[in-house]
Amino acid sequence: MKVKQVREVAAQDVEVDGAEGVRIQWLFGKDDAPENFYMRLFELAPGGHTPRHGHPWEHEVYILEGEGIVASTAGDQPLTAQSVVHVPAGEVHQFRNTGRAPLKFLCLVPKTADY
Amino acid sequence: MKVKQVREVAAQDVEVDGAEGVRIQWLFGKDDAPENFYMRLFELAPGGHTPRHGHPWEHEVYILEGEGIVASTAGDQPLTAQSVVHVPAGEVHQFRNTGRAPLKFLCLVPKTADY
Repeated sequence: MKVKQVREVAAQDVEVDGAEGVRIQWLFGKDDAPENFYMRLFELAPGGHTPRHGHPWEHEVYILEGEGIVASTAGDQPLTAQSVVHVPAGEVHQFRNTGRAPLKFLCLVPKTADY
Repeated sequence: MKVKQVREVAAQDVEVDGAEGVRIQWLFGKDDAPENFYMRLFELAPGGHTPRHGHPWEHEVYILEGEGIVASTAGDQPLTAQSVVHVPAGEVHQFRNTGRAPLKFLCLVPKTADY
């Protein structure tokens, strides 16, 4: 069993094309060798956004703090603390912080995701 | 894409042997047909606990609110908001609320888990 505190996990800037003001913490990632899926915590600065992109794996997202929207080919939907989002494999999507405070969310992906 | 609010998801009492004061919300479960894993939110009343048990699938846990411990064959470890726990497949474990307020946490399991 492994127990960590979020504050102990290093945060990294996300420097892919189309990302703005995005930081990531891999709460359970490759180094932890989970069998099935990875848990990441994202923090988007006010005005920040993830890339508008799609990929052949799904997301499960839990909004911890802040306000934003998730945009997809199905339209935009508002997000606030305790919103949850399932993005199916292949659907183009983007998370945007529309508030004045950081937008923080967990985003889980299957281990087969290509990171 | 599917977006929900936690408050909209029905909560159920967990009535398995060894569980006390435990409620569960399946934020993404069988009805949502995710490809890889399920997201559940547990709420343990003060003094409540999950069964002390093991099973052939892993857990990834994110503590949202409250105070408690996770007990396992590796010993007891304290939990508070923003603790994360990985329980490997096969390890006996139990979550206990040791505080005065509800202990709330996300617990994700692979879809192959036998629920």
